[in-house]
Amino acid sequence: MEDVDHLAHERSKAQFDVEEMKIVWAGSRHAFEVTDRMSRLVASDPIFRKDNRTLLPRKELFKNTLRKAAHAWKRIIELRLTEEEASKLRFFADEPNFTELHWGMFVPFIKGQGTDEQQKKWLPLAYKMQIIGCYAQTELGHGSNVQGLETTATFDPLTDEFVIHSPTLASSKWWPGGLGKVSTHAVVFARLIITDDRDYGVHGFIVQLRSLDDHLPLPGITVGDIGNKFGSGAYNTMDNGLLRFDNVRIPRDQMLMRISQVTREGKYVQSNVPRQLVYGTMVYVRQTIVADASCALARAVCIATRYSAVRRQFGSQNGGVETQVIDYKTQQNRLFPLLASAYAFRFVGEWLKWLYTDVTQRLQAKDFSTLPEAHACTAGLKSLTTTVTADSIEECRKLCGGHGYLSCSGLPELFAVYIPACTYEGDNVVLLLQVARFLMKTVSQLPSGMKPVGTTAYLGRVEDLMQCHSTVKKAEDWLNPSVVLEVFEARATRLSVACAQNLSKFAKQEEGFLELAADLVEAAVAHCQLIVVSKFIEKLQEDIPGKGVKEQLQTLCYVYALNLLHKHLGDFVATGCITPKQASLANDQLRSLYSQVRPNAVALVDSFNYTDHYLSSILGRYDGNVYPKLYEEAWKDPLNESVVPDGYHEYIRPLLKQQLRNARL
Amino acid sequence: MEDVDHLAHERSKAQFDVEEMKIVWAGSRHAFEVTDRMSRLVASDPIFRKDNRTLLPRKELFKNTLRKAAHAWKRIIELRLTEEEASKLRFFADEPNFTELHWGMFVPFIKGQGTDEQQKKWLPLAYKMQIIGCYAQTELGHGSNVQGLETTATFDPLTDEFVIHSPTLASSKWWPGGLGKVSTHAVVFARLIITDDRDYGVHGFIVQLRSLDDHLPLPGITVGDIGNKFGSGAYNTMDNGLLRFDNVRIPRDQMLMRISQVTREGKYVQSNVPRQLVYGTMVYVRQTIVADASCALARAVCIATRYSAVRRQFGSQNGGVETQVIDYKTQQNRLFPLLASAYAFRFVGEWLKWLYTDVTQRLQAKDFSTLPEAHACTAGLKSLTTTVTADSIEECRKLCGGHGYLSCSGLPELFAVYIPACTYEGDNVVLLLQVARFLMKTVSQLPSGMKPVGTTAYLGRVEDLMQCHSTVKKAEDWLNPSVVLEVFEARATRLSVACAQNLSKFAKQEEGFLELAADLVEAAVAHCQLIVVSKFIEKLQEDIPGKGVKEQLQTLCYVYALNLLHKHLGDFVATGCITPKQASLANDQLRSLYSQVRPNAVALVDSFNYTDHYLSSILGRYDGNVYPKLYEEAWKDPLNESVVPDGYHEYIRPLLKQQLRNARL
Ligand SMILES: Cc1cc2nc3c(=O)[nH]c(=O)nc-3n(C[C@H](O)[C@H](O)[C@H](O)COP(=O)(O)OP(=O)(O)OC[C@H]3O[C@@H](n4cnc5c(N)ncnc54)[C@H](O)[C@@H]3O)c2cc1C
Ligand SMILES: Cc1cc2nc3c(=O)[nH]c(=O)nc-3n(C[C@H](O)[C@H](O)[C@H](O)COP(=O)(O)OP(=O)(O)OC[C@H]3O[C@@H](n4cnc5c(N)ncnc54)[C@H](O)[C@@H]3O)c2cc1C
Ligand SMILES: [Ca+2]
Repeated sequence: MEDVDHLAHERSKAQFDVEEMKIVWAGSRHAFEVTDRMSRLVASDPIFRKDNRTLLPRKELFKNTLRKAAHAWKRIIELRLTEEEASKLRFFADEPNFTELHWGMFVPFIKGQGTDEQQKKWLPLAYKMQIIGCYAQTELGHGSNVQGLETTATFDPLTDEFVIHSPTLASSKWWPGGLGKVSTHAVVFARLIITDDRDYGVHGFIVQLRSLDDHLPLPGITVGDIGNKFGSGAYNTMDNGLLRFDNVRIPRDQMLMRISQVTREGKYVQSNVPRQLVYGTMVYVRQTIVADASCALARAVCIATRYSAVRRQFGSQNGGVETQVIDYKTQQNRLFPLLASAYAFRFVGEWLKWLYTDVTQRLQAKDFSTLPEAHACTAGLKSLTTTVTADSIEECRKLCGGHGYLSCSGLPELFAVYIPACTYEGDNVVLLLQVARFLMKTVSQLPSGMKPVGTTAYLGRVEDLMQCHSTVKKAEDWLNPSVVLEVFEARATRLSVACAQNLSKFAKQEEGFLELAADLVEAAVAHCQLIVVSKFIEKLQEDIPGKGVKEQLQTLCYVYALNLLHKHLGDFVATGCITPKQASLANDQLRSLYSQVRPNAVALVDSFNYTDHYLSSILGRYDGNVYPKLYEEAWKDPLNESVVPDGYHEYIRPLLKQQLRNARL
Repeated sequence: MEDVDHLAHERSKAQFDVEEMKIVWAGSRHAFEVTDRMSRLVASDPIFRKDNRTLLPRKELFKNTLRKAAHAWKRIIELRLTEEEASKLRFFADEPNFTELHWGMFVPFIKGQGTDEQQKKWLPLAYKMQIIGCYAQTELGHGSNVQGLETTATFDPLTDEFVIHSPTLASSKWWPGGLGKVSTHAVVFARLIITDDRDYGVHGFIVQLRSLDDHLPLPGITVGDIGNKFGSGAYNTMDNGLLRFDNVRIPRDQMLMRISQVTREGKYVQSNVPRQLVYGTMVYVRQTIVADASCALARAVCIATRYSAVRRQFGSQNGGVETQVIDYKTQQNRLFPLLASAYAFRFVGEWLKWLYTDVTQRLQAKDFSTLPEAHACTAGLKSLTTTVTADSIEECRKLCGGHGYLSCSGLPELFAVYIPACTYEGDNVVLLLQVARFLMKTVSQLPSGMKPVGTTAYLGRVEDLMQCHSTVKKAEDWLNPSVVLEVFEARATRLSVACAQNLSKFAKQEEGFLELAADLVEAAVAHCQLIVVSKFIEKLQEDIPGKGVKEQLQTLCYVYALNLLHKHLGDFVATGCITPKQASLANDQLRSLYSQVRPNAVALVDSFNYTDHYLSSILGRYDGNVYPKLYEEAWKDPLNESVVPDGYHEYIRPLLKQQLRNARL
């Protein structure tokens, strides 16, 4: 056992109280305590080991996942964990499996869309996992366009049943997690057809898929796994499934009827529960995706930062120690903005949690006024944070040079398992188009005096923001929250207004929207980046205890903003928000911020409080003991079981021993 | 068998002669013929099937690769293939294996660095594969910094031998392809030490690693595989290896002595062969990497384009057919620039091939004048094209929505197998820093009247280029090669000059270089993009036969350039090369170019002439018959071997059947 901390020197350089920063990162002292305890619980339990995952063939991998899921549940029961603790335990077990969909989609959907009786019937079964459910919406032919789903649920008044059917190949359900091999039940989305052949659009139905006795599919049901996915290990622990119905009958009361109902007589009626409730659930789910983005990004950044402090390359004179690669400005310019983004996403995620509570309270009070804005905002932030996180994980891998390409760096699997977040719960481009639509609507209503709310409130100051010019004169002038905020607001406003003006040149608004879609997406991105910047700034207005903690966060906030400004320079300069000279000052400031981050970098990633188990990365080890462990790890590969490889006698020896006569080479 | 071409309608819309375009893409009628024949040969041979690759555990995967490599060699001999044909056959077999390093590094290195006697001794063995060699440079502790390698080769005058030794753990060779399990020999890079303990720096040595009788490592040699890498299938077919030497002795004549020698007496002498020859080899290797980039990018673009034409989502009125996603402007704005880049990289790769011949001829004539420029140019283009290709493969995957995440889309494995190109043969950031260094030197020599050559010639017009303003007044004005070229030249010049000016403010140039590294990298990128644009424009000045072929290429050239202009708008506007108004006109023009590409898109990817075997993608199938084939493929997953999964009885049933009493949930 090696007990030397190879990064001790780095840690000693930190200019802030790491323990206090851990609490800021976790969100509260309580959250820190639970997270810390659960992550250690998982790390110390051998059943949760992950290090062999990328080597297992699919069937073994999957079986092992079932084992972990059962074990997690056992521990949750034995230790009488709270819901919060249980969800953290599942999080740190860190392996996609059916329980995610069961707890994350099936249960919330019944809660949100089921009537009181339906909830009373199904939830206790689900809570005790006496049934296991998944969320079957997407089909082979339709994902983004939910209204285009083809599965039908036809009401049969004779038997008081719905007949669920897959009329075409493309209508096969395709992708639902947990569906392929595990789920006994599903919330199935299907077009509601009532005998007169009228199509009432897509509704949710609870359908039993497998027998609770022997797990065999029920009559009329074809179900299976959709096959191998990106990477090794990664999402292949999940049984994303396919599903076809051949006239499967379910009782009428298995349509989720909180919002609309079909009566015994086959009449379609809307309940007095507002349809807008659906959006509440979406806000909830997407808020968790934003929180997860910050965790995944932090994980990649933690690995790359520690390894960049361990790795030395070039820069020695006459055989002295070489430069740590983290000291190179290019490395800093690639890495530190990602570190800053991890914190930025953390805080915007925290704020979204608040937004969800706010929306829920308003919905209960039948106040729907903020809902469209909240919906656009969460859609946009889901898109922004997942796109950046996916790209950044790969950038972190590249920051680790060749060794990042090894599975044991942890980064390949993290990438493979993370990237679907850009696609599920709304394709990121489709989501940005929704945000853009909302922005265009908001801008178009400004002349009529409509006051934009929430994160679009700044558009209410459109006249000022169309005209203002930044007052920055020297590099340090950029270290001012209101200066930064103003240029981000001005840029977002100007891009939106420009789009609106260009749209107005089209005879048909819809045609314009299609034609200008690429510009609209850019306006939406600018809007979302502004939200992140502004929530980071708001966070800094809070009281944040701990020596040096707030100073560090301030530095990161400016790194986040000024790096974005540089990356999107065209927007800022072309719309006249800032001059080229001011841009160059921002760049100078950014460089000096990097120097401030540098001594704190390792401590700033320590603040995520990740265990080595969770990181599962040799490059990201807490103790920095990288080379001996890489060397040890290599020998575990199955190829190293024998010195002479399988296949030598058949395929290598004959090559070496052949006597070539007629080769042209 | 399904014989319908679901993309026939798309193909009928093409406004150019696809067969002629295939020849342009291939480079010549001859190249087309060879490529076409070899790709079909591979596709029709069942031993080369790839479709099960992502499911195999490492050992089976590797054994299967050995089988394919041996089979390829057998076919090459049987069919008496030329070197060109053989290399195409290996290319289309499309599976990384030891032969790449043998033919691509071991043989060329002996050719380049070996004396005539050494070549006479080793090359015939290598040509007949009676020995198999790899290229062992990188160590656990040193990759980019080759001069920092730690392996030693100490001359022992008593025995006239070199003693090869690994003095530290970090000095273990690490990464060489083909080393882990197959190679019998290696070119090993080690510090040459002569008895007086003087260190002559890193030199290459031919070292036998394994017995030719039983394949066991020779005494003193520890060798093995470094373990699992990114993805499933992918680069795991390659035995990247580790290697340690415990005082291994080799005869003196196994030092590669073309450029410098150690005499019997232990004297180090330089030969009269110029050292610059080394750069010639680098130019060669990197030129092939650029060519490979265009192929990999074309492959991803081909898949995403065909699937985007098959996939329909949204936009139908009352149940009519929906819009093909390729018709959405956001999809076009993401996809068509990548299509244009594939062609752009193809042509710049072709030009690099010419450059290599030119450099070689000059070297033979002892003219070294163009070498530094050629070296910087290939380093930069290697970096630019591989970075863009890696990112673009992932973007193509995202363009395919959820289905892109399935292994059978072909994109996950393509990504995993491609990305190391960003790291090997020079980390892409380190390479850009080299380019920047060359640019700074070039700029600093301008005042003294030194005339920049080759791809830096434009810097000779620095005064004009610092002052010029684009004359564009309407969108179509952008459709002018000299207008486009001028703004790219002006931007590159201005970024370089700005860096040079900022550098001059530092007391020590080297400190400035470190501090401003991020800006320098941007200047280098601008320079490299200019090269690609200018070579595309040069290509268009050639005579290109075939109906509509040149017109298509013109469109793609403008798409390439104007998209870059938009992406790097900040550079162009902030340096005053163009006005915001002109930028907006470029954007308008770009949109209308997309409309011109649209009807030709499928034909433009057909022009790559890729077989379905090579693409190995259900989404990219030539016939567009995507859904039935996806459905079929899913059932092949091992998880679907049984309806009830392995592990049901142990881990699922107990969950479902438990009677929970003490759960808090
Ligand atoms: C790992 C994973 C897990 C999943 N889990 C589940 C699950 O549990 N349950 C479930 O029901 N589903 C699940 N899904 C499916 C997922 O929700 C869909 O894949 C997602 O909604 C995207 O839809 P799509 O695949 O149809 O993409 P498509 O809509 O086909 O996207 C293809 C391309 O078209 C573009 N595009 C589409 N429409 C437009 C438009 N109007 N304008 C411009 N561009 C457009 C997109 O941007 C994209 O580039 C999962 C998917 C994955 C990858
Ligand atoms: C699949 C694969 C196959 C390979 N095959 C072979 C082979 O056959 N033979 C062989 O010998 N090797 C091989 N290699 C090794 C490869 O050549 C090295 O990985 C590569 O040279 C990069 O070096 P590195 O890993 O040391 O990266 P590092 O130099 O450690 O890079 C780490 C980080 O530091 C940064 N950095 C390093 N130096 C500087 C600097 N001066 N300024 C600014 N930033 C810097 C880099 O940009 C990067 O972000 C292979 C690697 C891979 C992944
Ligand atoms: Ca820039």
